[in-house]
This record gives sequence, C-alpha cells and structure tokens, in this order.
Amino acid sequence: MPAYTAPTKDIQFLLHDVLKISESSVAGFADLDRDTTGAIIDEAGKLASDVLAPLNATGDAEGCRLENGVVSTPTGFKEAFAAMKDGGWNGLDLPEEFGGQGLPYLMGTAVGEVFVSANMAFNMYQGLTHGAIGAILAHGSDQQKATYLPKMVSLDWTGTMNLTEPHCGTDLGLIRTKAEPQADGSYKITGQKIFISAGDHDLAENIIHLVLAKAPGGGEGTRGISLFIVPKFLVKDDGSLGARNAVAPGKIEEKMGIHGNATCVMNYDGATGYLVGELHKGMRNMFTMMNEARLGVGLQGYAVAEAAYQASLAYAKDRLQGRAVTGAANPEGPADPLIVHPDIRRALMDQKSFVEGARALTYWGAELIDRSHRQGDAAADGMISLLTPVIKGFLTDKGFDSTVQAQQIFGGHGYIEEWGMSQFVRDARIAMIYEGANGVQALDLVGRKLALDGGKHFMAFLDMVKGFLKENADHEGMQQGFLEPLKTASKNLQAAAMFFMQNGMKTPNAALAGSTDFLHLFGHVALGLMWAKMARASFDALAAGTADEGFYRTKIATGRYYMARQLPAAALHLARIESGAEPVMALPAEAF
Amino acid sequence: MPAYTAPTKDIQFLLHDVLKISESSVAGFADLDRDTTGAIIDEAGKLASDVLAPLNATGDAEGCRLENGVVSTPTGFKEAFAAMKDGGWNGLDLPEEFGGQGLPYLMGTAVGEVFVSANMAFNMYQGLTHGAIGAILAHGSDQQKATYLPKMVSLDWTGTMNLTEPHCGTDLGLIRTKAEPQADGSYKITGQKIFISAGDHDLAENIIHLVLAKAPGGGEGTRGISLFIVPKFLVKDDGSLGARNAVAPGKIEEKMGIHGNATCVMNYDGATGYLVGELHKGMRNMFTMMNEARLGVGLQGYAVAEAAYQASLAYAKDRLQGRAVTGAANPEGPADPLIVHPDIRRALMDQKSFVEGARALTYWGAELIDRSHRQGDAAADGMISLLTPVIKGFLTDKGFDSTVQAQQIFGGHGYIEEWGMSQFVRDARIAMIYEGANGVQALDLVGRKLALDGGKHFMAFLDMVKGFLKENADHEGMQQGFLEPLKTASKNLQAAAMFFMQNGMKTPNAALAGSTDFLHLFGHVALGLMWAKMARASFDALAAGTADEGFYRTKIATGRYYMARQLPAAALHLARIESGAEPVMALPAEAF
Repeated sequence: MPAYTAPTKDIQFLLHDVLKISESSVAGFADLDRDTTGAIIDEAGKLASDVLAPLNATGDAEGCRLENGVVSTPTGFKEAFAAMKDGGWNGLDLPEEFGGQGLPYLMGTAVGEVFVSANMAFNMYQGLTHGAIGAILAHGSDQQKATYLPKMVSLDWTGTMNLTEPHCGTDLGLIRTKAEPQADGSYKITGQKIFISAGDHDLAENIIHLVLAKAPGGGEGTRGISLFIVPKFLVKDDGSLGARNAVAPGKIEEKMGIHGNATCVMNYDGATGYLVGELHKGMRNMFTMMNEARLGVGLQGYAVAEAAYQASLAYAKDRLQGRAVTGAANPEGPADPLIVHPDIRRALMDQKSFVEGARALTYWGAELIDRSHRQGDAAADGMISLLTPVIKGFLTDKGFDSTVQAQQIFGGHGYIEEWGMSQFVRDARIAMIYEGANGVQALDLVGRKLALDGGKHFMAFLDMVKGFLKENADHEGMQQGFLEPLKTASKNLQAAAMFFMQNGMKTPNAALAGSTDFLHLFGHVALGLMWAKMARASFDALAAGTADEGFYRTKIATGRYYMARQLPAAALHLARIESGAEPVMALPAEAF
Repeated sequence: MPAYTAPTKDIQFLLHDVLKISESSVAGFADLDRDTTGAIIDEAGKLASDVLAPLNATGDAEGCRLENGVVSTPTGFKEAFAAMKDGGWNGLDLPEEFGGQGLPYLMGTAVGEVFVSANMAFNMYQGLTHGAIGAILAHGSDQQKATYLPKMVSLDWTGTMNLTEPHCGTDLGLIRTKAEPQADGSYKITGQKIFISAGDHDLAENIIHLVLAKAPGGGEGTRGISLFIVPKFLVKDDGSLGARNAVAPGKIEEKMGIHGNATCVMNYDGATGYLVGELHKGMRNMFTMMNEARLGVGLQGYAVAEAAYQASLAYAKDRLQGRAVTGAANPEGPADPLIVHPDIRRALMDQKSFVEGARALTYWGAELIDRSHRQGDAAADGMISLLTPVIKGFLTDKGFDSTVQAQQIFGGHGYIEEWGMSQFVRDARIAMIYEGANGVQALDLVGRKLALDGGKHFMAFLDMVKGFLKENADHEGMQQGFLEPLKTASKNLQAAAMFFMQNGMKTPNAALAGSTDFLHLFGHVALGLMWAKMARASFDALAAGTADEGFYRTKIATGRYYMARQLPAAALHLARIESGAEPVMALPAEAF
C-alpha cells in the first residue's frame, strides 16, 4: 500500500519563491508568511498521511454499498470524515460569515492537493460540497444562504451537483427533469439524474442537491433550464431537519475507479425543490463556479500523479534488478536498484517534471481566481477563463499518462492490485471525463476562450511569455536550456492560433479538428512558462544564498528536463493543427 | 456489452492485396487463396462473435476462483473452450505430425487476432499453450514431443511459462527456484513462481508447466538456468495420467484486468521435472520462441484496440449529442450523432489508422517468421528479430492509448463497467508489461537489435523504405500525402541511429536515455511504411478496377490521416533523443 507524504517544500517554494504571496497586494495574502503556510500544509499533510492515505486502497477494494435504500461508505470513511470536519478544513477558504476561515482560494487549493493525493475518492465528498456552496454563495437568496451554508461549511451537511441524465451529458439542452411550480413558491422536481458523485452516503446528516431542471415557459434547449436546491431532508424554519424529501439513490454505479465515492443514479419523484437565482438562468448559475470546479479537476489530475510518482520513486530506489550499464552501482548487492537505469530515470523525470509544472500552473490559476474575486481584477478573470480548459484538459490527460508511467515502473507488480498502482491509474482516468470531457474543454478553448473579449486574454498570455523572455534575456543560467525552448514553443502556439484565425472562418472544422492538439500545445507552453519562472526563482534563491542549495539545483535540472524533452511536443501539435480539417473529415460517416 | 465482428475485409486485404500470399513462394502460402482464407476467417469470426465476445464482460466481472486448491474459470469458459478445441483452432498452424493442420504462422496470427479481440483473457489459455508447444517443438526430445505435443495441440492439455519470481522479473539471473538431479534422470523442482498466466484452471485434463530453474554446477546468473517440463499430473508410459505432481497454485492474483485468466502464484515443492534441451541452456531455450511470443503480445495491443474501436464507433454513430458546427446533420432528431463532431472524428481516425497500420505490421512480422521457419531465410529472421521489440513495445503502448481514446468517446458511460470500455483499457494495460516490459523492449532494440550482425538488418529496413520511395516516386496518388512524410520520418530514424552511434560508445547512457523514444520513432516509421504499402495496393486495386471502390478509397484516406497526423511524431522523438543523456541523468539518485 503506497505511503504518501505532502510535498511541503515544493508547495512552499511555489507560494513564497515563485508567487511571493506574502508580498502580494491581494487581500489576505500578506498574512500568509512562510511559517503560517508551512504550518497549515504540515497539518493537512498529517491528516493526509495518517488518516486518508491508509484508507485509499481499502476504500477502493470495499467500495460503497446501497442496501435497503441506504448507502454505506467504506470502513473508516466516517471516522476520517469526522476528523476532516473537526479540523475545519472545508471552511479554510470559505467566508467567515458562514463559519469559514476566509483564507485565499490559493490556500484551499494547496491543502486540497494534499488531500486528493492521499485519497481522491474520499475527498470528493468534501469537494462536491465546496462546489455546491459556491453556487449558493453566488446565486442563493439571503435566506437560502443562512439556511444551508453554515451547515455545509461545517460539513454537517454535504452537497452534490446534478446535471447529467441518461440521454444527455455535454448537451444539457436535452434535459428532461421537470420542475413544476407550486402554490407556496417551491417546485416539484421529477426526473432521473445519473453519475451523481457523493449522491448519497452515511457521512453527513443531510445532503443538499443542486439540480438542473426545466420549469415551464423557458423555451427549448438550455434556455429553459433552472437551478434548484433539493435537500435530502427538508429543513424546518428553526433549522432542524424535517421530513425526508422524495429523492433517493436508485443505484450505485460500478465504476473503473474512485470506488470509495458513491456515484449514484438519483431519482427525483416530485421532490420539493427551491429555485436558486433567476428562473431559466440555471445554466449560467450552475456554471458560475465552473473555473473553480474545473481547476479542481485539473488538480486531481496531477495530485493523483504526485501520489503515484512518490510510490514509483520509492520502488525504483528499492527494487534490485539488473546492473547499471556504466558499472555496478550496488556491487555488494545481487543487483542495482532500478533507478540506475536511464529508461527508468526518464520515466521518473517525466513524472516529476510534469507534476511540479502542473502544480505551478494550478497555483497560478488559483491566485488568478483570488485576484478576480478579492480584487475584482478583470484581467485576472479573463486569464483564468482562458486557462481553465487548459488546466482541466491538459493536466488530467497528462496526469493520467503520468500514473501509467508510475505503474509501468513496477512491472508485473504494477498490474496487481496489491501495490496500489492500478488504483491510481483507474482513479485518475475519471478526471479526463467529468466536469466536461476533455474534448469539450478543447472545444471551449478554441471555440470560445481564444477569441474571448477580442482575443485579448490570449494576447496577454503571449505578451507575458514575451515579457518574461525579454526580462531574462541576459540571465546566464536562463540562457542555458530555458529561454530558447520557451520562445520556440510559444511561437508554435501563436502560429496555431494564426492558423485558426485564417482558416476557422471559412472552414469551422479546421479549428475544431485541431482543438485537442491546441489544448495540448497551450498546456506545454504554459508548463514551459511555469518551469522558466521556477528556474528563475531558483537562480535568484541561489544567488541570494540559501541553506538548501540542493533543492534549488534540483528544480533547475528538472526544469531543463521539461524544456528539453517535453516542450518539443509543441511542434508536433502545430504540425497536426496545420494539416487542417481535411485528413480528419475526409471520410463520410458511412465509410467508417 | 460491446459486440464484435471480425474485420474480414481488412484481413483479406492484407493477405491478398498487400502481402499477396497466394503468389508467394513460401511453403504453404500458395494454397491460401482468397476463398480459403476468407472461409477460415469467417469461421473464426463466428466463434468469436457468437461464443467468445459474449463471455468477455462476464468473465471480467466474475473472474477466477481458487477454492480448496482448485481453480475455477468464469461461467461459460468450459463450454467455449470445448468449442475452441472441437474446431481444431489451436492446431491451425502447428505441425500435422502432432495433429495440427500445418498452415502458416501468418494464418494462425490472423485467426488469433480475431479471438483476442473477442476475448483476450479467454484466449490466453490457448495462447500460453501455443508458446509451450513451441518450446517443446524446438528443444524437447523425441520422446517429450511424442508424450506431450499431441495432447497439447488438441487442447486436451494446456501449457504455461514459468519465469518470474517475487524478487526477479526482467533480471532472471536472480532466479532461486532449484532443480535437484535425481537418480532416474528427472529433477526435483522447488521454488515459487509468480504471475503465471493460466497457471491452473478447470479447462483441461492436464497442465504442462515449462519452468526455469537452477540446477547445480551452472554458475552464477543466467548461465545457471535450465528449462524443465513439470506436468500437473505425471504422465504414465502409456500416455495416461498418473499421480498429481507436487505443484499447486498458491493464490490467484487480484489484477487490474484480464480477470478471466487465472494468473497464479505457483508453488513447486519438490515437483518432478524433466530437463528440456541442454542443461544450463534454459534461457536460450525459453527465448527461442521469443519473437513469436512477443509478436503475439503486440497483436494483443492492437486486437483489443480493434474491439474498443468497434464499440466506440457504434456509440459515436448512435449517441445524439450537440449539433454539427456546419449545420444540423440530423435535423429531425433532438441532436446530431457524436460522429459529426471533428474532435470525435479525430479520435476515431486515430484509432482506425493505428489499428489498421498495426495489423499490417504484425502480419508482415508473421510472414517474416514463416519465411524464416519454412524457408530458412536468414534475412527474414534478422528482420523479424529487429522488428520484434518494435511490434511488442509500440503496438502495446499505442494499443493501450487507443483503448483510452475509445473509452473517452463514451464520456461518463465509458467509466462505468456496464459499457465494457473500462475492461478494454484494463485488459490492454497488461500487454505493455508482460513478455518483457516495454522499457526492456526498448533496451533490446537499442542495445542489441540495432547493431545485430553489424547493423545490417536495420540498414535493410532503411533500404526497404528508400526502395519503396524510389519505386513510387512517379505515382501521382502516392505523391499526395504519402511519400514526403515517409521520407522525412525515415530520415529522422536514420538520424537517431546515427546519434546513438556517435554518442553511445563514449556515453552508453546517451543511447539508453533515448531508447523508448527510439522504439516509438521506429514504430511510427514502420506504420508509415505499412500505410504507404497499403495505399499503393489500394491505388493498384482501383486502377485494375474493383467492385468495392469505397473500401480502397477509405484505406487511402485513412493512410493519409496517419501520414499527416501521426507520422510527424517522428521529429519529436528525434528531438528528445538528440537532447542526449544529460537532462535524463542530471540528478543524482539522492536528489529525487
């Protein structure tokens, strides 16, 4: 069973050496000095290592059960959830008004990573609650906020998001769940929702479902959709729990992974629901929280990869097999550890350089969300809107690949469940699918975000890269393996966007046929920029003098690896994009 | 539950339009006219579609059980195995002397693909038997052949290969299983073997284990290893079954996939074993069949991808979601089928162009094996030795990716077990690991095969590409999207080999750090060559006149897709290779 240790030094490096949060003008950032954030991460790390990680494999093996209408979570989840609740972790980045601690979203993200790495399936109960809280905070009435939020922030109650139906996933305009207005202002909700994460369970007293449904008079497609609160138990005026509502889990899905989370079919049989926000504006309201929700899934992509990397690294150091080609590294032993072999080293460097780059991109994204929410910074809001599909799509695609590489290092032992590597792969797989499948992320990026506000956010990203290259042009360390690859890759990104502009109008398929490649191209450039920034911060730390030279030198070497071995993928993606729609669309559908 | 239909037309196209087997001088090929091979594939296809495919999902869900020392296979496997046996399928390409039909290995490969696509886990019982038969055929005594082969060819008995032990997989020099010589010429075998596919089961009367063990006097490492036959039940002189031997399954492994196959820990407690071939030459003897065994695993890579592709194609045509950007394709319906969307089309074309290219490469490999075995063609033997790690490594890596793409098309439905897509991914994953993990394939390719016989096989491959380009230089159809990409990619391959030559001697790590990239680079060029050949065969068929123009035009369009969208990966792999060992090996092991 893999052990997990929170990467506190790496997290601190990003918060303080790279993002320099305690020097930031964003409200609340200045309070976060190195000691404070270190203490928070250490404390989260303890819970993660001691309580959550040991339940990861057992939760996978045991799964959730639905018996007589009651869902039970795996052994130990109740106690772990109580510990999570007692620690007040859910409220870390939520408003003090409702019982939270009001810290920046960035800190919630850092802590969230640690919990997800330790036990992704477990952390979803809390993660979905966070999402539901966000929607109520943004669109709920004062009364709804007062009724639901304090209990949800404290994790006495949890939340869910109900969008998908059997015949519709991406295309929510096809929703059939009905909302019939009642005389008292409430609605009767009737329909079936599927793939509802944390849909029912035994961890909380009540579950607050946020449900998309169609109320009369809204018209066809997504225009007719509204958002409703449907509590599992109705809440009385005094805040105590009343009657059971007409909503129940119909089934727990048998899934490839995240077995510890109860993914339910939810049946609504005239359940009482309360409109959230404006009628017929449900899509907009549900998606207000989209940037955060998708960033959270991108985080899952690399957080599970981090846990898998830690396990594969330990195995590579421990397992004796073969001899180094350059001469025995462990001459006293029967063989050398796997880590001496260049191809194993490559697989470790691939993982390490991805995970650390992905963490940097995600934390930058979280900081942009804070800038947007706490400062009303429109440029930050535009930038995170642009980056969201990249963070979600690229980090989950590559995060999955990274877990597969970790598993591969174990050879046959990676394939049997005993070592836990299969679970990482199976768990990581879902992140490429939910919260908008990665193909939809690519469509969002190319079809919407690229041209958003006249393309100014994309231009701002390119300008940021250019500015960085200019500022660092004379830096000797940065000249060695950082500036040139970043420049080349960012030119590829620009050329790809140019290709879409020139061809997309007359051949819309030309852009869409290259959408996934564009997402990956953008992802590589973004991680390249992150590595360049991390390298510069490391050079600066070394120049200023540090007791931990090894740490910073390792960062620089890892960054050079990413630049040399990963960033050249940008040219491949550009080549594919420039081949246009023709090869992709050449066959009529009947010819397949 | 996914349906499966044998791709008879695609198989026939390769056998007759591309390989033109009935015009071949290889012994036995000329008998194989279009009607004969078509009848064989159709018959295999019936068994696959009607019997094997329906047991794929149930076998996965049910798995194998070990109770009171007895292993049971999933419901229906016994009956299906009886049908396989009655059809004489196992003996198709085995010598008539031992009850087989003596057809070329190529035909066994084509039929094998169909069975693997339908039910990979089931087909392993037969596949391992085939491998064990091969080793006995090559190295067994006449008496051993007479005793074991007829019963194994008929599938009354099955076979296994026992190499791995808990502390050694790749590094077989570490084997601890002991063989103690007995007065009667037999050996007592004692030790534990793990990950033994089809190690024990209820499908056959007897199981013939081929076991690597160390007999006294052989020296250290792999030199001391010998190969033994260890039957589950001892065989009396009259051929009837005698006493149970001291070998038993200790455990069935819990695996990520191929649940229908009983992967066993096998305990040998002084079991009676019989030496196969020379003492202390066990490694050589076990690996005689390596090219076939590894080609068989490469085949699994694309055969499972074929089944996953068929399922994802059916879903893409059936599932209505969203509207085509170019205008509604299904205006009467609530939405358009997924297949109208360019990014879905891309995912289908990626799969289709991979699977068909991989099939061509595998069949070419099988034909080379026939040339080698039936004609003693040394050039063919050298070429298949070179190609074997590419076929095994590239086709299983890409085959796995291909199943992941198929699963992705299903969105959330791909993640739940109900639709069968998770199983394809979980099953395909093992092929990257067993029969030599893909990192070991890359090492074999770069460290051994590339320079084999003075590098002449690699040169022969490059010459073949050059020859093809020259022959086709004036062909108008081939000029459009085929020749130039193949030329560029093959130059990349040559440049990579040159880099290894120039740097590998003074820095062995420089070659090894690029080994996986070289394997993929080679794989792309090989599939590019296959597509070019398939395109040329299609142009020829169109020029000659055919009733099935659509089929050939589809081949050409699919080939153009591969050339435009996949072959440019060659340049990326070269860039990584040329970055050398430094980025990979920069960190000392302690810095991780």
